[in-house]
Amino acid sequence: MTRFDTFCDGVFAIAITLLGLEMKIPTFDTSNAIGLGWALLEQWPVHVAFLTSFFIILVIWNLHHRLFKLIRGVNKPLFFANGLLLFAVTVIPFTTNLVAEYFNSSHRAIAMMVYACQSFPVGFGFVGLLQVTIRYPEVRKPGVEVKRLRAWHRKMWITSCFFVASFILVFIEPYLSLGIIFGAAVYWSLAKTY
Amino acid sequence: MTRFDTFCDGVFAIAITLLGLEMKIPTFDTSNAIGLGWALLEQWPVHVAFLTSFFIILVIWNLHHRLFKLIRGVNKPLFFANGLLLFAVTVIPFTTNLVAEYFNSSHRAIAMMVYACQSFPVGFGFVGLLQVTIRYPEVRKPGVEVKRLRAWHRKMWITSCFFVASFILVFIEPYLSLGIIFGAAVYWSLAKTY
Amino acid sequence: MTRFDTFCDGVFAIAITLLGLEMKIPTFDTSNAIGLGWALLEQWPVHVAFLTSFFIILVIWNLHHRLFKLIRGVNKPLFFANGLLLFAVTVIPFTTNLVAEYFNSSHRAIAMMVYACQSFPVGFGFVGLLQVTIRYPEVRKPGVEVKRLRAWHRKMWITSCFFVASFILVFIEPYLSLGIIFGAAVYWSLAKTY
Amino acid sequence: MTRFDTFCDGVFAIAITLLGLEMKIPTFDTSNAIGLGWALLEQWPVHVAFLTSFFIILVIWNLHHRLFKLIRGVNKPLFFANGLLLFAVTVIPFTTNLVAEYFNSSHRAIAMMVYACQSFPVGFGFVGLLQVTIRYPEVRKPGVEVKRLRAWHRKMWITSCFFVASFILVFIEPYLSLGIIFGAAVYWSLAKTY
Repeated sequence: MTRFDTFCDGVFAIAITLLGLEMKIPTFDTSNAIGLGWALLEQWPVHVAFLTSFFIILVIWNLHHRLFKLIRGVNKPLFFANGLLLFAVTVIPFTTNLVAEYFNSSHRAIAMMVYACQSFPVGFGFVGLLQVTIRYPEVRKPGVEVKRLRAWHRKMWITSCFFVASFILVFIEPYLSLGIIFGAAVYWSLAKTY
Repeated sequence: MTRFDTFCDGVFAIAITLLGLEMKIPTFDTSNAIGLGWALLEQWPVHVAFLTSFFIILVIWNLHHRLFKLIRGVNKPLFFANGLLLFAVTVIPFTTNLVAEYFNSSHRAIAMMVYACQSFPVGFGFVGLLQVTIRYPEVRKPGVEVKRLRAWHRKMWITSCFFVASFILVFIEPYLSLGIIFGAAVYWSLAKTY
Repeated sequence: MTRFDTFCDGVFAIAITLLGLEMKIPTFDTSNAIGLGWALLEQWPVHVAFLTSFFIILVIWNLHHRLFKLIRGVNKPLFFANGLLLFAVTVIPFTTNLVAEYFNSSHRAIAMMVYACQSFPVGFGFVGLLQVTIRYPEVRKPGVEVKRLRAWHRKMWITSCFFVASFILVFIEPYLSLGIIFGAAVYWSLAKTY
Repeated sequence: MTRFDTFCDGVFAIAITLLGLEMKIPTFDTSNAIGLGWALLEQWPVHVAFLTSFFIILVIWNLHHRLFKLIRGVNKPLFFANGLLLFAVTVIPFTTNLVAEYFNSSHRAIAMMVYACQSFPVGFGFVGLLQVTIRYPEVRKPGVEVKRLRAWHRKMWITSCFFVASFILVFIEPYLSLGIIFGAAVYWSLAKTY
């Protein structure tokens, strides 16, 4: 394990734990006996948004972990592609909070648009990381097959296209848009990578 | 130490430190000379909730540490069982805050119910982790005795049943419910595991 | 480096960085041209409290680091003594915030009392860690001289007594109390330990 | 990788992720259909400040990483120089927040002044780290050429002078001041160090 991985893992671990910090305890009519239970149920978008983003960061970390098992050295392009990915991850608590707050309002589409936007640097960050690993032999460990990296790279491209589609679909159906992003996370948690 | 452990440790360390962040400085009648001292004493549920959750996360981390000493590789089922456990841990600062806020109100039962709920993924996360370690020989280190893992697994099941009981008991006696959860933490901090 | 150290380092790193998070941007009369500068100067207790606590955590981390260089295994008493120390560290952002908020008010003594209180588990945590290291040969690395550990242990006891004194002195002179705690941090940052 | 690096990496990782936490979701006239989108666009200084500080911490981490590759042991002067650097990093979320809040107001100059101030301990922290590495042979790994360290040290001095200039320029043109700090980050992300 290199110091590079540790730093990235730190960012992933913090972002995933900060999600919980964004969940505010609800305010409600305290004279009502079951007020708290009701208030917690009513803020279901907060809980769904938290769960979704928790799962997404977990999958990003897992993919990052699997990719860096094949890498032995870090050059400048890899540093920047990785920076793009880390950037996306640090933004997730903010966008999650935005969706949680405005999902049950007339501003749902714009909140979901920002959430979809944040999936671009995730997708293209991984595309970039894979592209660098394919192009520079000094980055990957000896014995790593470029052919298999290319297959992974291709699937990552398709995922990124789906993310762009989820952005456009926001204006037609926000639920579908959220479904695509969540679906991509489920796919990559199960898919073979290398 | 693998990268997997480091990530989990990061989540545990952050969750335990964020507990302190949830403790807000009290507001009070500033014209009163001993107002601050009084206000700090009056918010004792905040301090008790903080201490309890601090101890619980410490014990979860310790148990996780002891279990992963026996593990050499991570497969998909282990990844998901571990994800369930991490999820529970990231939720603790939120539920702690909820209990701290509403323990001295008529909403105590519902707040405690949510706190008890959060103990389910802890218990079943560990049950899952142990089950995976027992079922897949490639996950555990050579020389690890399945028999002793089974004993640990059985005790974990019983603990999880106690957690379910603590959830039901909330409606009868919230203090008893809190006592069961805290008692389980004390038990596991002293119990032999492997 | 064992997994135990990593977890503690995580807690130290998070607590030290969260201090910065507690510094709120000031509110002020925005019609005044130099209002922001003035407001930042006026909240000097916030900055002093931040600097003091930053330095204190840095020194605690450094001492912990130096002690664990001599340790090869963790047993139960060491786990609990270490838990006490970690507890003190996670509380520091809260007490720092309290002092920062109430230092320039009539509640200064009580705020400082809480701040002094928090130094007890730091002192006695280290006393406990050293005591365990002295008592159990299986905890310390072979070749570690008990005699030199005893000298360190004695100095730690004296420091803890100073912390108790700082608590009592709060009622006479809060500045002196703060001076003792800061002085202890300066002493241990320069003192020979082993 | 030593425990010293891990602690520093923890601080860098937390500071970079906390930046995202400082981004508050905007408040706006909810009766307006595109209110949220507009509110997000209107708070562009928040997003620019976040991006700039994200990039700055990433570069600081990268430089720290490259320097500590040449170091084998930590002595007291190195500990304090490193402490100065860590201090600067933990302050960044606060100063970023300050700039984000007051960039579009008459208080821009003072907010930018504080932001420029924070670059001093970054510059002089690195100058100190390099100076210690040059002076004490027991700190650096065998085979590390002092001549090349000196070249790095000289460039770091020049950068620190630019930071001082950016502080003075705040009163003439805040944009230019921000440009210098960002330019230094871009320079060091691409520059050869050793």
